[in-house]
Amino acid sequence: MVRYKAVIAYDGTNFHGFQRQPNGRTVQEEIENTLQKMNNGQPIMIFGSGRTDAGVHAIGQVIHFDFPQERPEERMRFGLDTQTPDDIAVRSIEIVSEEFHARYDVQEKTYQFKVQIQKPRSPFLRFYAAYYPYPLDLDKIQQALPDLLGTHDFTSFCATGSSIEDKVRTIYQADMEVNADRSEITFIFRGNGFLYKMIRILVGTLLKIGNGRLAADSLPEIIAQKDRNAAGPTAHPEGLYLAEVKYKKTK
Amino acid sequence: MVRYKAVIAYDGTNFHGFQRQPNGRTVQEEIENTLQKMNNGQPIMIFGSGRTDAGVHAIGQVIHFDFPQERPEERMRFGLDTQTPDDIAVRSIEIVSEEFHARYDVQEKTYQFKVQIQKPRSPFLRFYAAYYPYPLDLDKIQQALPDLLGTHDFTSFCATGSSIEDKVRTIYQADMEVNADRSEITFIFRGNGFLYKMIRILVGTLLKIGNGRLAADSLPEIIAQKDRNAAGPTAHPEGLYLAEVKYKKTK
Repeated sequence: MVRYKAVIAYDGTNFHGFQRQPNGRTVQEEIENTLQKMNNGQPIMIFGSGRTDAGVHAIGQVIHFDFPQERPEERMRFGLDTQTPDDIAVRSIEIVSEEFHARYDVQEKTYQFKVQIQKPRSPFLRFYAAYYPYPLDLDKIQQALPDLLGTHDFTSFCATGSSIEDKVRTIYQADMEVNADRSEITFIFRGNGFLYKMIRILVGTLLKIGNGRLAADSLPEIIAQKDRNAAGPTAHPEGLYLAEVKYKKTK
Repeated sequence: MVRYKAVIAYDGTNFHGFQRQPNGRTVQEEIENTLQKMNNGQPIMIFGSGRTDAGVHAIGQVIHFDFPQERPEERMRFGLDTQTPDDIAVRSIEIVSEEFHARYDVQEKTYQFKVQIQKPRSPFLRFYAAYYPYPLDLDKIQQALPDLLGTHDFTSFCATGSSIEDKVRTIYQADMEVNADRSEITFIFRGNGFLYKMIRILVGTLLKIGNGRLAADSLPEIIAQKDRNAAGPTAHPEGLYLAEVKYKKTK
Protein backbone atom coordinates (compact mmCIF):
# COMPACT_ATOMS: atom_id res chain seq x y z
CA MET A 1 0.00 0.00 0.00
CA VAL A 2 1.21 3.48 -0.92
CA ARG A 3 -0.25 6.51 0.85
CA TYR A 4 -1.13 9.52 -1.29
CA LYS A 5 -1.90 13.05 -0.07
CA ALA A 6 -3.95 15.15 -2.48
CA VAL A 7 -4.94 18.82 -2.52
CA ILE A 8 -8.37 19.20 -4.10
CA ALA A 9 -10.73 22.05 -5.00
CA TYR A 10 -14.46 21.77 -5.43
CA ASP A 11 -17.47 23.89 -6.21
CA GLY A 12 -19.80 22.94 -3.35
CA THR A 13 -22.97 24.12 -5.12
CA ASN A 14 -24.13 20.72 -6.32
CA PHE A 15 -22.84 18.65 -3.38
CA HIS A 16 -24.55 17.69 -0.15
CA GLY A 17 -21.23 18.42 1.51
CA PHE A 18 -17.92 16.56 1.61
CA GLN A 19 -18.82 13.51 3.66
CA ARG A 20 -20.50 10.46 2.15
CA GLN A 21 -24.14 10.05 3.16
CA PRO A 22 -27.00 7.78 2.13
CA ASN A 23 -28.99 10.43 0.25
CA GLY A 24 -27.36 13.09 -1.87
CA ARG A 25 -24.24 13.45 -3.96
CA THR A 26 -21.05 14.11 -1.98
CA VAL A 27 -17.40 14.90 -2.76
CA GLN A 28 -16.18 11.81 -0.90
CA GLU A 29 -18.49 9.55 -2.89
CA GLU A 30 -17.38 10.96 -6.26
CA ILE A 31 -13.67 10.64 -5.48
CA GLU A 32 -14.04 7.17 -3.97
CA ASN A 33 -16.04 6.02 -7.00
CA THR A 34 -13.27 7.27 -9.30
CA LEU A 35 -10.52 5.62 -7.23
CA GLN A 36 -12.47 2.36 -7.29
CA LYS A 37 -12.49 2.49 -11.11
CA MET A 38 -8.74 3.22 -11.13
CA ASN A 39 -8.26 0.25 -8.76
CA ASN A 40 -9.93 -2.41 -10.94
CA GLY A 41 -13.21 -2.18 -9.07
CA GLN A 42 -11.80 -2.64 -5.57
CA PRO A 43 -13.04 0.06 -3.16
CA ILE A 44 -10.67 2.66 -1.69
CA MET A 45 -11.56 4.95 1.22
CA ILE A 46 -10.46 8.57 1.41
CA PHE A 47 -9.95 10.68 4.55
CA GLY A 48 -10.44 14.44 4.42
CA SER A 49 -8.97 17.12 6.69
CA GLY A 50 -12.54 17.66 7.85
CA ARG A 51 -16.07 17.92 6.52
CA THR A 52 -17.55 20.80 4.63
CA ASP A 53 -21.30 21.43 4.59
CA ALA A 54 -23.67 21.52 1.62
CA GLY A 55 -22.93 24.53 -0.60
CA VAL A 56 -19.52 25.18 1.00
CA HIS A 57 -16.57 25.34 -1.41
CA ALA A 58 -12.95 24.23 -1.19
CA ILE A 59 -9.89 25.74 -2.84
CA GLY A 60 -7.42 23.62 -0.86
CA GLN A 61 -9.11 20.68 0.88
CA VAL A 62 -6.64 17.89 1.69
CA ILE A 63 -7.36 14.16 1.57
CA HIS A 64 -5.31 11.00 1.91
CA PHE A 65 -5.86 7.45 0.67
CA ASP A 66 -3.94 4.22 0.27
CA PHE A 67 -3.49 2.73 -3.18
CA PRO A 68 -2.23 -0.84 -3.70
CA GLN A 69 0.41 0.02 -6.32
CA GLU A 70 2.83 2.89 -6.52
CA ARG A 71 2.05 5.15 -9.47
CA PRO A 72 3.96 8.29 -10.45
CA GLU A 73 2.45 11.27 -8.63
CA GLU A 74 1.55 13.28 -11.74
CA ARG A 75 -0.02 10.24 -13.41
CA MET A 76 -2.16 9.65 -10.33
CA ARG A 77 -3.12 13.35 -10.17
CA PHE A 78 -4.03 13.49 -13.85
CA GLY A 79 -6.06 10.26 -13.70
CA LEU A 80 -8.03 11.33 -10.65
CA ASP A 81 -8.52 14.91 -11.90
CA THR A 82 -9.80 13.99 -15.33
CA GLN A 83 -12.03 11.09 -14.21
CA THR A 84 -13.80 12.98 -11.40
CA PRO A 85 -16.65 15.32 -12.44
CA ASP A 86 -15.88 18.90 -13.50
CA ASP A 87 -16.88 20.39 -10.15
CA ILE A 88 -13.90 18.65 -8.49
CA ALA A 89 -10.28 19.45 -9.39
CA VAL A 90 -7.23 17.57 -8.14
CA ARG A 91 -4.60 20.28 -7.81
CA SER A 92 -1.63 18.23 -6.61
CA ILE A 93 -0.76 14.76 -5.34
CA GLU A 94 2.28 13.50 -3.45
CA ILE A 95 3.31 10.19 -1.96
CA VAL A 96 3.59 10.52 1.84
CA SER A 97 4.61 8.37 4.79
CA GLU A 98 1.96 5.85 5.80
CA GLU A 99 1.83 7.63 9.15
CA PHE A 100 0.42 10.79 7.57
CA HIS A 101 -3.25 11.39 8.35
CA ALA A 102 -5.20 14.16 6.61
CA ARG A 103 -7.41 14.75 9.64
CA TYR A 104 -5.33 13.99 12.73
CA ASP A 105 -2.15 15.78 11.63
CA VAL A 106 -3.73 19.16 10.79
CA GLN A 107 -1.70 22.04 12.19
CA GLU A 108 -3.76 24.93 10.87
CA LYS A 109 -6.62 25.67 8.52
CA THR A 110 -7.46 28.80 6.57
CA TYR A 111 -11.00 29.67 5.56
CA GLN A 112 -12.23 32.53 3.41
CA PHE A 113 -15.75 33.92 3.48
CA LYS A 114 -16.96 36.14 0.65
CA VAL A 115 -19.89 38.57 1.01
CA GLN A 116 -21.43 40.68 -1.76
CA ILE A 117 -22.37 43.99 -0.12
CA GLN A 118 -23.70 45.98 -3.11
CA LYS A 119 -27.10 45.82 -4.78
CA PRO A 120 -28.33 44.16 -6.94
CA ARG A 121 -27.21 40.60 -6.26
CA SER A 122 -24.75 39.58 -8.99
CA PRO A 123 -25.90 36.56 -11.02
CA PHE A 124 -22.23 35.46 -11.04
CA LEU A 125 -21.99 35.36 -7.24
CA ARG A 126 -25.31 33.74 -6.40
CA PHE A 127 -23.59 30.45 -5.53
CA TYR A 128 -20.19 31.93 -4.61
CA ALA A 129 -20.79 34.67 -2.04
CA ALA A 130 -23.27 35.47 0.71
CA TYR A 131 -25.37 38.60 0.04
CA TYR A 132 -25.68 41.43 2.56
CA PRO A 133 -27.20 44.54 0.91
CA TYR A 134 -27.69 46.43 4.20
CA PRO A 135 -25.84 49.39 5.72
CA LEU A 136 -22.38 48.28 6.82
CA ASP A 137 -19.69 50.24 8.65
CA LEU A 138 -16.57 48.37 7.61
CA ASP A 139 -14.44 50.30 10.14
CA LYS A 140 -16.42 48.77 12.98
CA ILE A 141 -15.76 45.29 11.61
CA GLN A 142 -12.04 46.07 11.29
CA GLN A 143 -12.09 47.30 14.87
CA ALA A 144 -13.75 44.09 16.13
CA LEU A 145 -11.65 41.50 14.28
CA PRO A 146 -8.54 41.55 16.56
CA ASP A 147 -10.72 40.50 19.52
CA LEU A 148 -10.99 37.07 17.91
CA LEU A 149 -7.23 36.47 17.89
CA GLY A 150 -5.66 34.12 20.42
CA THR A 151 -6.90 31.14 22.40
CA HIS A 152 -10.52 31.19 23.54
CA ASP A 153 -13.39 28.89 24.38
CA PHE A 154 -15.56 29.49 21.29
CA THR A 155 -18.75 27.81 22.63
CA SER A 156 -20.74 30.94 21.64
CA PHE A 157 -19.66 30.40 18.02
CA CYS A 158 -20.42 26.69 17.81
CA ALA A 159 -23.68 25.37 16.35
CA THR A 160 -25.79 23.77 19.05
CA GLY A 161 -25.89 20.00 18.87
CA SER A 162 -22.16 19.59 18.20
CA SER A 163 -20.78 16.59 20.09
CA ILE A 164 -17.28 18.08 20.45
CA GLU A 165 -16.51 18.73 24.11
CA ASP A 166 -13.36 20.81 23.97
CA LYS A 167 -14.36 24.10 22.38
CA VAL A 168 -11.07 25.90 22.94
CA ARG A 169 -9.42 26.97 19.69
CA THR A 170 -6.64 29.35 18.72
CA ILE A 171 -7.12 31.91 15.94
CA TYR A 172 -3.91 33.24 14.38
CA GLN A 173 -5.41 35.50 11.74
CA ALA A 174 -8.76 37.31 11.39
CA ASP A 175 -8.75 39.78 8.52
CA MET A 176 -11.12 41.44 6.10
CA GLU A 177 -10.27 42.52 2.55
CA VAL A 178 -12.40 44.86 0.44
CA ASN A 179 -12.28 44.59 -3.37
CA ALA A 180 -11.47 47.53 -5.64
CA ASP A 181 -15.04 48.72 -6.31
CA ARG A 182 -16.16 47.99 -2.72
CA SER A 183 -18.82 45.53 -3.91
CA GLU A 184 -17.38 42.52 -2.05
CA ILE A 185 -15.65 41.83 1.25
CA THR A 186 -13.67 38.69 2.02
CA PHE A 187 -12.96 37.49 5.54
CA ILE A 188 -9.83 35.39 6.15
CA PHE A 189 -9.65 33.22 9.25
CA ARG A 190 -6.64 31.08 10.09
CA GLY A 191 -6.48 28.91 13.20
CA ASN A 192 -5.54 25.55 14.67
CA GLY A 193 -9.09 24.34 14.12
CA PHE A 194 -12.67 25.55 13.91
CA LEU A 195 -15.90 24.29 15.49
CA TYR A 196 -19.03 23.22 13.61
CA LYS A 197 -20.35 26.24 11.64
CA MET A 198 -17.94 28.48 13.58
CA ILE A 199 -16.79 30.58 10.59
CA ARG A 200 -20.37 31.17 9.47
CA ILE A 201 -21.42 32.26 12.96
CA LEU A 202 -18.36 34.51 13.24
CA VAL A 203 -19.31 36.16 9.94
CA GLY A 204 -22.97 36.51 10.95
CA THR A 205 -21.84 38.22 14.16
CA LEU A 206 -19.33 40.51 12.43
CA LEU A 207 -21.99 41.63 9.92
CA LYS A 208 -24.31 42.43 12.84
CA ILE A 209 -21.51 44.58 14.29
CA GLY A 210 -21.00 46.31 10.93
CA ASN A 211 -24.74 46.92 10.72
CA GLY A 212 -24.71 48.60 14.15
CA ARG A 213 -26.93 46.08 15.93
CA LEU A 214 -24.02 44.93 18.09
CA ALA A 215 -21.28 47.18 19.45
CA ALA A 216 -17.82 47.02 17.86
CA ASP A 217 -16.32 46.00 21.22
CA SER A 218 -18.88 43.28 22.01
CA LEU A 219 -16.87 40.19 20.95
CA PRO A 220 -15.00 39.63 24.26
CA GLU A 221 -18.31 39.64 26.15
CA ILE A 222 -19.95 37.30 23.59
CA ILE A 223 -17.01 34.88 23.90
CA ALA A 224 -17.17 35.07 27.71
CA GLN A 225 -20.86 34.12 27.78
CA LYS A 226 -20.20 30.68 26.21
CA ASP A 227 -23.74 30.77 24.85
CA ARG A 228 -24.64 30.36 21.17
CA ASN A 229 -27.55 32.79 21.67
CA ALA A 230 -25.14 35.60 22.47
CA ALA A 231 -23.62 35.54 18.98
CA GLY A 232 -25.18 36.57 15.66
CA PRO A 233 -26.92 34.44 13.03
CA THR A 234 -25.23 31.77 10.89
CA ALA A 235 -24.17 33.24 7.53
CA HIS A 236 -25.17 31.34 4.38
CA PRO A 237 -22.88 28.50 3.26
CA GLU A 238 -22.27 29.69 -0.31
CA GLY A 239 -19.80 32.37 0.87
CA LEU A 240 -17.50 29.86 2.61
CA TYR A 241 -14.27 28.44 1.13
CA LEU A 242 -11.85 26.02 2.79
CA ALA A 243 -8.74 27.73 1.45
CA GLU A 244 -5.72 25.89 2.87
CA VAL A 245 -4.78 23.11 5.29
CA LYS A 246 -1.29 23.00 6.78
CA TYR A 247 0.32 19.99 8.44
CA LYS A 248 3.01 19.27 10.97
CA LYS A 249 6.30 18.41 9.31
CA THR A 250 5.66 15.26 7.30
CA LYS A 251 6.75 12.27 9.35
CA MET B 1 -46.37 54.77 -23.13
CA VAL B 2 -43.15 55.45 -21.25
CA ARG B 3 -39.85 54.13 -22.62
CA TYR B 4 -37.43 52.57 -20.15
CA LYS B 5 -33.76 51.78 -20.73
CA ALA B 6 -32.33 49.08 -18.46
CA VAL B 7 -28.80 47.80 -17.87
CA ILE B 8 -28.91 44.10 -17.07
CA ALA B 9 -26.42 41.37 -16.15
CA TYR B 10 -26.93 37.67 -16.64
CA ASP B 11 -25.15 34.39 -16.13
CA GLY B 12 -25.51 32.80 -19.58
CA THR B 13 -24.89 29.24 -18.37
CA ASN B 14 -28.51 28.15 -18.21
CA PHE B 15 -29.81 30.21 -21.15
CA HIS B 16 -30.07 29.32 -24.82
CA GLY B 17 -28.86 32.84 -25.48
CA PHE B 18 -30.54 36.24 -25.22
CA GLN B 19 -33.08 36.07 -28.03
CA ARG B 20 -36.46 34.37 -27.63
CA GLN B 21 -36.75 31.09 -29.49
CA PRO B 22 -39.30 28.27 -29.65
CA ASN B 23 -37.22 25.72 -27.73
CA GLY B 24 -35.05 26.62 -24.80
CA ARG B 25 -35.04 29.18 -22.02
CA THR B 26 -33.85 32.65 -23.05
CA VAL B 27 -33.12 35.95 -21.30
CA GLN B 28 -35.65 37.81 -23.46
CA GLU B 29 -38.40 35.35 -22.56
CA GLU B 30 -37.73 35.57 -18.80
CA ILE B 31 -37.74 39.38 -18.78
CA GLU B 32 -40.80 39.64 -21.02
CA ASN B 33 -42.67 37.14 -18.84
CA THR B 34 -41.87 39.24 -15.76
CA LEU B 35 -42.90 42.50 -17.46
CA GLN B 36 -46.17 40.87 -18.52
CA LYS B 37 -46.91 40.02 -14.88
CA MET B 38 -46.05 43.60 -13.85
CA ASN B 39 -48.41 44.83 -16.62
CA ASN B 40 -51.56 42.97 -15.51
CA GLY B 41 -51.04 40.15 -17.97
CA GLN B 42 -50.62 42.32 -21.07
CA PRO B 43 -47.50 41.40 -23.07
CA ILE B 44 -44.54 43.78 -23.38
CA MET B 45 -41.69 43.34 -25.85
CA ILE B 46 -38.09 44.15 -25.03
CA PHE B 47 -35.31 45.14 -27.44
CA GLY B 48 -31.68 44.32 -26.64
CA SER B 49 -28.52 46.00 -27.90
CA GLY B 50 -27.86 42.72 -29.69
CA ARG B 51 -28.04 38.97 -29.17
CA THR B 52 -25.70 36.88 -27.10
CA ASP B 53 -25.25 33.17 -27.80
CA ALA B 54 -25.92 30.23 -25.49
CA GLY B 55 -23.46 30.21 -22.58
CA VAL B 56 -22.34 33.81 -23.17
CA HIS B 57 -22.62 36.16 -20.18
CA ALA B 58 -23.51 39.82 -19.80
CA ILE B 59 -22.30 42.32 -17.22
CA GLY B 60 -23.83 45.33 -18.99
CA GLN B 61 -26.35 44.31 -21.66
CA VAL B 62 -28.81 47.13 -22.45
CA ILE B 63 -32.49 46.72 -23.30
CA HIS B 64 -35.42 49.06 -23.82
CA PHE B 65 -39.17 48.56 -23.51
CA ASP B 66 -42.35 50.61 -23.40
CA PHE B 67 -44.57 50.45 -20.33
CA PRO B 68 -48.12 51.89 -20.30
CA GLN B 69 -47.77 53.79 -17.02
CA GLU B 70 -44.92 55.87 -15.68
CA ARG B 71 -43.43 54.29 -12.57
CA PRO B 72 -40.52 55.66 -10.53
CA GLU B 73 -37.26 54.34 -11.98
CA GLU B 74 -36.04 52.62 -8.79
CA ARG B 75 -39.43 51.00 -8.21
CA MET B 76 -39.40 49.63 -11.75
CA ARG B 77 -35.79 48.41 -11.33
CA PHE B 78 -36.51 46.73 -8.02
CA GLY B 79 -39.68 45.06 -9.30
CA LEU B 80 -38.05 43.70 -12.42
CA ASP B 81 -34.85 42.66 -10.59
CA THR B 82 -36.57 40.76 -7.81
CA GLN B 83 -39.21 39.07 -9.98
CA THR B 84 -36.81 37.79 -12.66
CA PRO B 85 -34.87 34.59 -11.84
CA ASP B 86 -31.59 34.81 -9.90
CA ASP B 87 -29.42 34.43 -12.99
CA ILE B 88 -30.65 37.81 -14.26
CA ALA B 89 -29.93 41.09 -12.42
CA VAL B 90 -31.37 44.48 -13.31
CA ARG B 91 -28.57 46.88 -12.45
CA SER B 92 -30.18 50.19 -13.36
CA ILE B 93 -33.24 51.61 -15.10
CA GLU B 94 -33.91 55.07 -16.47
CA ILE B 95 -36.76 56.68 -18.36
CA VAL B 96 -35.59 57.74 -21.82
CA SER B 97 -36.97 59.55 -24.85
CA GLU B 98 -39.28 57.41 -26.96
CA GLU B 99 -36.79 57.85 -29.80
CA PHE B 100 -34.12 55.88 -27.94
CA HIS B 101 -33.51 52.40 -29.39
CA ALA B 102 -31.27 49.90 -27.59
CA ARG B 103 -30.10 48.34 -30.84
CA TYR B 104 -30.06 51.09 -33.47
CA ASP B 105 -28.47 53.79 -31.32
CA VAL B 106 -25.43 51.80 -30.18
CA GLN B 107 -22.24 53.82 -30.44
CA GLU B 108 -19.78 51.29 -29.03
CA LYS B 109 -19.69 47.94 -27.30
CA THR B 110 -17.12 46.43 -24.98
CA TYR B 111 -16.63 42.69 -24.62
CA GLN B 112 -14.37 40.78 -22.27
CA PHE B 113 -13.14 37.26 -22.82
CA LYS B 114 -11.65 35.29 -19.93
CA VAL B 115 -9.32 32.30 -20.42
CA GLN B 116 -7.95 30.03 -17.69
CA ILE B 117 -4.40 29.17 -18.76
CA GLN B 118 -3.18 27.06 -15.80
CA LYS B 119 -3.84 23.41 -15.03
CA PRO B 120 -5.99 21.90 -13.60
CA ARG B 121 -9.24 23.44 -14.73
CA SER B 122 -10.78 25.35 -11.81
CA PRO B 123 -14.21 24.07 -10.77
CA PHE B 124 -15.16 27.72 -10.17
CA LEU B 125 -14.38 28.77 -13.75
CA ARG B 126 -15.90 25.85 -15.64
CA PHE B 127 -18.84 28.00 -16.78
CA TYR B 128 -17.07 31.38 -16.56
CA ALA B 129 -13.85 31.11 -18.57
CA ALA B 130 -12.54 29.20 -21.56
CA TYR B 131 -9.71 26.77 -20.75
CA TYR B 132 -6.41 26.75 -22.60
CA PRO B 133 -3.80 24.65 -20.72
CA TYR B 134 -1.25 24.70 -23.56
CA PRO B 135 2.05 26.58 -23.96
CA LEU B 136 1.34 30.27 -24.46
CA ASP B 137 3.76 33.10 -25.18
CA LEU B 138 1.83 36.10 -23.86
CA ASP B 139 4.36 38.53 -25.37
CA LYS B 140 3.44 37.33 -28.85
CA ILE B 141 -0.24 38.00 -28.14
CA GLN B 142 0.58 41.48 -26.82
CA GLN B 143 2.60 42.09 -29.97
CA ALA B 144 -0.30 41.02 -32.23
CA LEU B 145 -3.18 42.89 -30.54
CA PRO B 146 -2.49 46.41 -31.98
CA ASP B 147 -2.91 45.01 -35.52
CA LEU B 148 -6.65 44.70 -34.78
CA LEU B 149 -7.09 48.41 -34.04
CA GLY B 150 -8.75 50.66 -36.57
CA THR B 151 -11.24 50.14 -39.38
CA HIS B 152 -11.06 46.85 -41.28
CA ASP B 153 -13.21 44.43 -43.23
CA PHE B 154 -13.42 41.63 -40.66
CA THR B 155 -14.87 38.94 -42.99
CA SER B 156 -12.12 36.54 -41.84
CA PHE B 157 -13.43 36.85 -38.27
CA CYS B 158 -17.12 36.40 -39.03
CA ALA B 159 -18.84 33.02 -38.67
CA THR B 160 -19.86 31.67 -42.05
CA GLY B 161 -23.57 31.84 -42.71
CA SER B 162 -23.98 35.37 -41.33
CA SER B 163 -26.43 37.37 -43.44
CA ILE B 164 -24.79 40.72 -42.65
CA GLU B 165 -23.29 42.23 -45.82
CA ASP B 166 -21.18 45.08 -44.52
CA LYS B 167 -18.37 43.47 -42.55
CA VAL B 168 -16.38 46.65 -41.95
CA ARG B 169 -16.01 47.45 -38.26
CA THR B 170 -13.81 49.76 -36.20
CA ILE B 171 -11.97 48.48 -33.12
CA TYR B 172 -10.91 51.16 -30.63
CA GLN B 173 -9.35 48.95 -27.99
CA ALA B 174 -7.81 45.45 -28.04
CA ASP B 175 -6.04 44.64 -24.79
CA MET B 176 -5.06 41.68 -22.66
CA GLU B 177 -4.78 41.64 -18.87
CA VAL B 178 -3.07 38.93 -16.84
CA ASN B 179 -4.18 38.25 -13.27
CA ALA B 180 -1.80 38.29 -10.29
CA ASP B 181 -0.93 34.58 -10.21
CA ARG B 182 -0.87 34.32 -14.03
CA SER B 183 -3.63 31.70 -14.02
CA GLU B 184 -6.10 33.75 -16.11
CA ILE B 185 -5.94 36.19 -19.00
CA THR B 186 -8.75 38.55 -19.94
CA PHE B 187 -9.09 40.11 -23.38
CA ILE B 188 -10.88 43.45 -23.70
CA PHE B 189 -12.31 44.48 -27.08
CA ARG B 190 -14.08 47.79 -27.64
CA GLY B 191 -15.47 48.76 -31.01
CA ASN B 192 -18.37 50.29 -32.91
CA GLY B 193 -19.83 46.82 -33.46
CA PHE B 194 -18.82 43.19 -33.80
CA LEU B 195 -19.81 40.50 -36.31
CA TYR B 196 -21.38 37.14 -35.46
CA LYS B 197 -18.94 35.17 -33.25
CA MET B 198 -16.23 37.75 -34.06
CA ILE B 199 -14.83 38.04 -30.52
CA ARG B 200 -14.64 34.26 -30.13
CA ILE B 201 -12.81 33.89 -33.48
CA LEU B 202 -10.46 36.75 -32.56
CA VAL B 203 -9.62 34.98 -29.28
CA GLY B 204 -9.18 31.60 -31.01
CA THR B 205 -6.77 33.24 -33.44
CA LEU B 206 -4.83 35.11 -30.74
CA LEU B 207 -4.42 31.89 -28.72
CA LYS B 208 -3.06 30.20 -31.85
CA ILE B 209 -0.53 33.05 -32.13
CA GLY B 210 0.41 32.66 -28.46
CA ASN B 211 0.80 28.92 -28.99
CA GLY B 212 3.21 29.55 -31.89
CA ARG B 213 1.07 27.99 -34.61
CA LEU B 214 0.58 31.37 -36.26
CA ALA B 215 3.18 34.13 -36.44
CA ALA B 216 2.79 37.16 -34.17
CA ASP B 217 2.61 39.43 -37.24
CA SER B 218 0.04 37.35 -39.14
CA LEU B 219 -3.13 39.35 -38.35
CA PRO B 220 -2.86 41.93 -41.18
CA GLU B 221 -2.54 39.11 -43.73
CA ILE B 222 -5.45 37.16 -42.16
CA ILE B 223 -7.63 40.29 -42.30
CA ALA B 224 -6.58 40.94 -45.91
CA GLN B 225 -7.62 37.45 -47.02
CA LYS B 226 -11.29 38.05 -46.13
CA ASP B 227 -11.66 34.31 -45.60
CA ARG B 228 -12.93 32.68 -42.40
CA ASN B 229 -10.55 29.75 -43.03
CA ALA B 230 -7.54 32.05 -42.66
CA ALA B 231 -8.35 32.78 -38.98
CA GLY B 232 -8.15 30.44 -35.97
CA PRO B 233 -10.88 28.38 -34.34
CA THR B 234 -13.91 29.81 -32.47
CA ALA B 235 -13.19 29.99 -28.72
CA HIS B 236 -15.80 28.50 -26.36
CA PRO B 237 -18.73 30.75 -25.37
CA GLU B 238 -18.34 30.47 -21.58
CA GLY B 239 -15.39 32.90 -21.59
CA LEU B 240 -17.35 35.72 -23.25
CA TYR B 241 -18.94 38.66 -21.42
CA LEU B 242 -20.83 41.59 -22.96
CA ALA B 243 -19.36 44.19 -20.61
CA GLU B 244 -20.72 47.58 -21.68
CA VAL B 245 -22.84 49.25 -24.35
CA LYS B 246 -22.49 52.98 -25.00
CA TYR B 247 -24.99 55.15 -26.84
CA LYS B 248 -25.03 58.38 -28.79
CA LYS B 249 -26.12 61.30 -26.65
CA THR B 250 -29.66 60.55 -25.52
CA LYS B 251 -32.06 62.31 -27.84
